[in-house]
Amino acid sequence: MRLLEERIVRDGKVRDGNVLKVDCFLNHQMDIQFFGEMAKEFYSLFQDDNISKILTIEASGIGIACITAQVFNCPVIFAKKSKTKNIAGDVYTAKVESFTHGGTYDIIVSKEFLKPSDRVLIIDDFLANGSALSGLSSLVKDAGATLVGAGIAIEKAFQHGGDVLREQGLRIESLARIKSMENGKIEFC
Amino acid sequence: MRLLEERIVRDGKVRDGNVLKVDCFLNHQMDIQFFGEMAKEFYSLFQDDNISKILTIEASGIGIACITAQVFNCPVIFAKKSKTKNIAGDVYTAKVESFTHGGTYDIIVSKEFLKPSDRVLIIDDFLANGSALSGLSSLVKDAGATLVGAGIAIEKAFQHGGDVLREQGLRIESLARIKSMENGKIEFC
Repeated sequence: MRLLEERIVRDGKVRDGNVLKVDCFLNHQMDIQFFGEMAKEFYSLFQDDNISKILTIEASGIGIACITAQVFNCPVIFAKKSKTKNIAGDVYTAKVESFTHGGTYDIIVSKEFLKPSDRVLIIDDFLANGSALSGLSSLVKDAGATLVGAGIAIEKAFQHGGDVLREQGLRIESLARIKSMENGKIEFC
Repeated sequence: MRLLEERIVRDGKVRDGNVLKVDCFLNHQMDIQFFGEMAKEFYSLFQDDNISKILTIEASGIGIACITAQVFNCPVIFAKKSKTKNIAGDVYTAKVESFTHGGTYDIIVSKEFLKPSDRVLIIDDFLANGSALSGLSSLVKDAGATLVGAGIAIEKAFQHGGDVLREQGLRIESLARIKSMENGKIEFC
């Protein structure tokens, strides 16, 4: 998506450790009008797939997922990163390694919200090592639901998480795929 | 807002410790079409206030904030609950007590996203003891921005956080105000 690539080049900042900082429009401050453009793009890619639910993960996936869900006219579920008082016992769970924070955490989704009849589209802001996406996929499979695919805003293709998951048969549509960020220069696939 | 009260009565579940579980439409699974109705209500309340930014807190405030921001045509900032690699040094910070999880945590917002010229509307899903709202308010004040008010989906009025903050001069508009939840029966103000 040309518009997103241009925005990344204009506003993104490359930090040490292969961190791409896009928090002025994507994952701290959120440009909702721009999210609408991304949502339309996701719709054009998945409109024939009878999506019944969008699944994302807290926190930075939620905004894009919600604006995208408006276009698909379906609910969003966000996987939570830790067990809270508000979630009763019956949950699907998976382990995720965090690229940004380091370490491993559990993600959970209440069983009542993912059913075998669901056709699920996963939406997230970033795909790097693929750990979050892999965890979300396994929640969908555990529920016996159909995983239609994943719509990602920015894929760091040089970290190869997307390649591995595509080889396993997952359909992944990334709106911007970064080939390299060496010396602060961002190149797209 | 009659529609929200009806939805709470229909789908909400009262749990031990004054927990109201509304995770089938508000804060785990999110009914985006319904969020659109709440957003229109917030717009009718704050449309004359020249809102330039909506501020919320991760994770469950983000969805409502984003759908509301579409109507106001402004960006959303979400306060983060812990310091991550992706946020550089310059942040506003405040302490918040968690009703749901127990304990205290820091919330942060990058200084670059809150400016003295901003007119800020805070949006959140719940108001109970008022700690999150108080923390968000102090971030806005620290930035020298104008805090126009707060739009809340569900206020647990019997916990009095809203009363205290209203007495301090904060304009709070809650779409549903719960007077009591004794014996599992939800009564509104």
